[in-house]
Amino acid sequence: MKILVMGAAGMIGRKLIERLLNDGQLRGAAITDIHGFDVVEGSFQNAGSINVSMTAGDISDAAVVDALVENQPDVIFHLAAIVSGEAESDFEKGYRVNLLGTQNLFNAIVARDEYCPRMVYASSIAVFGAPFPESIEDEFHLTPLTSYGTQKAIGELLLADYTRKGHMDGLGMRLPTVVVRPGKPNLAASGFFSNIIREPLAGLPAVLPVSEDVMHWMASPRSAVGFCIHAAEIDGDTVGPRRNLTMPGLAITVGEMIAALEKVAGADTASLIERKTDETISGIVANWPRKFIAERAVSLGFSAETSFEDIIRVHIEDELSEM
Amino acid sequence: MKILVMGAAGMIGRKLIERLLNDGQLRGAAITDIHGFDVVEGSFQNAGSINVSMTAGDISDAAVVDALVENQPDVIFHLAAIVSGEAESDFEKGYRVNLLGTQNLFNAIVARDEYCPRMVYASSIAVFGAPFPESIEDEFHLTPLTSYGTQKAIGELLLADYTRKGHMDGLGMRLPTVVVRPGKPNLAASGFFSNIIREPLAGLPAVLPVSEDVMHWMASPRSAVGFCIHAAEIDGDTVGPRRNLTMPGLAITVGEMIAALEKVAGADTASLIERKTDETISGIVANWPRKFIAERAVSLGFSAETSFEDIIRVHIEDELSEM
Repeated sequence: MKILVMGAAGMIGRKLIERLLNDGQLRGAAITDIHGFDVVEGSFQNAGSINVSMTAGDISDAAVVDALVENQPDVIFHLAAIVSGEAESDFEKGYRVNLLGTQNLFNAIVARDEYCPRMVYASSIAVFGAPFPESIEDEFHLTPLTSYGTQKAIGELLLADYTRKGHMDGLGMRLPTVVVRPGKPNLAASGFFSNIIREPLAGLPAVLPVSEDVMHWMASPRSAVGFCIHAAEIDGDTVGPRRNLTMPGLAITVGEMIAALEKVAGADTASLIERKTDETISGIVANWPRKFIAERAVSLGFSAETSFEDIIRVHIEDELSEM
Repeated sequence: MKILVMGAAGMIGRKLIERLLNDGQLRGAAITDIHGFDVVEGSFQNAGSINVSMTAGDISDAAVVDALVENQPDVIFHLAAIVSGEAESDFEKGYRVNLLGTQNLFNAIVARDEYCPRMVYASSIAVFGAPFPESIEDEFHLTPLTSYGTQKAIGELLLADYTRKGHMDGLGMRLPTVVVRPGKPNLAASGFFSNIIREPLAGLPAVLPVSEDVMHWMASPRSAVGFCIHAAEIDGDTVGPRRNLTMPGLAITVGEMIAALEKVAGADTASLIERKTDETISGIVANWPRKFIAERAVSLGFSAETSFEDIIRVHIEDELSEM
């Protein structure tokens, strides 16, 4: 079982490789090789008997990407993308990395006869654009309002068609917002969803820039990795031709998140959150989807946390266990 | 008012140029120039004072396409595409012409600062893929089951995003199956919808390869040209960010089509249709959409025939008037 991880240095990429090294097997076969690729070289620990290698390069360079599939990996996790904010501020770079990069990867596979890897593709709920119904069902149309969402939606269409034509065996996952992200606070518009949990748990203050009644769709990093593994293992025939699925998540308000934090870590911890409304961030978030009914994904065996307390506990177990 | 027509030698392209020459104006301004481009050079008649030119070339050549927008046409009609059957049998060519060609056109516009033409884009109901509800509403998702439909759906996403970012002012039209197509019978799976009307009206036999209860979504060539004109003239602000619209049409069964033919042209004409079921064509057609509720397009002023007798009369007026 040879595995290629595109976007190996990102948060989910790193955690996925850790999980694969720990599991030692995928799709019932022992993992022999993992190659990780990203714009910067990824790192890993404790590879055991698995041959792990990491390289860095430019996904928009077709020759670079072609070389990555030369050894015909059995499973490819395509998590590589520049983020929403950068794709929005740099139009040309967004299309070059997120669209052309994806085309380079898919076309490198088409170029190899009789090669048909399982392709696990990270899409995003950013493929949806307001206005929305109260709950978004599996048959709701994709009308992204960002270039990032557009690029992800195009990747979904390519994945489904390339799969239908037998060039790959693809599965696209529309990931919820991943919370709690480890690391430093960042300035992404969605950053506060993680900041208001992670920082207080570390004894540090955090700013809440939106109203407590804002609802959003979330899953933990551990669930996101679980989606990747399940997407790699699921029988494609049971999925059928509609290969892009909205992943399960938890629809919860910011107020409920804070109440869960107080329950898990106490009132003193929750009191480290400072309410300071930011009109710009509030405006952006108002156009984000709030809630999905991820019926197909759930029926196909994908699962996520059903309470925010569980999401907090996952963060404590996975990130703060040395404390 | 300078106009560029991509796909000028196709059926709709030719009729659109004829209409533009006849109208002499678009968006309230006198037409001064029309340039038509296609893979083969288009023809035209009676240009009057309008400067009409035609060239042929390869839309997948970025330099060729760039030169076409050098004089910054005010309105671009992008009707150019290889058809569904060819895009399905030649995977590489389909993506090269239908996707890369569209990207070349859109990117040639982005490359010109302060240039923001109205882009009228011919999409298709092929962006939808079975299974469907009884009637397909405006918020139903796009899950194409052909490479052609995938390429058209990607063009829709690009058009909406490029419009949102201010690079163009786009309007995508999902065209119904156009009936009655003039010319010779062709072997396209959808050809019979036109053949069973056009051939008997010319005193010739025609084969019906599907059951009479097959329902499909249709509009006349004249309506398709009307969609193009209205799409060129409509105020983009009233459309909003969802720039791709399912065009209105008529949902009608083959049996109802034949009854209308009999009413317009008599029982002898209708008796020229021979029932001879073709399992392959029946199977393909079973996966096509049958009926839409094109609410947004209708509310925005797009209109089509509401009876098949009218569609037949349009054919007689526009194609058989010399007879």
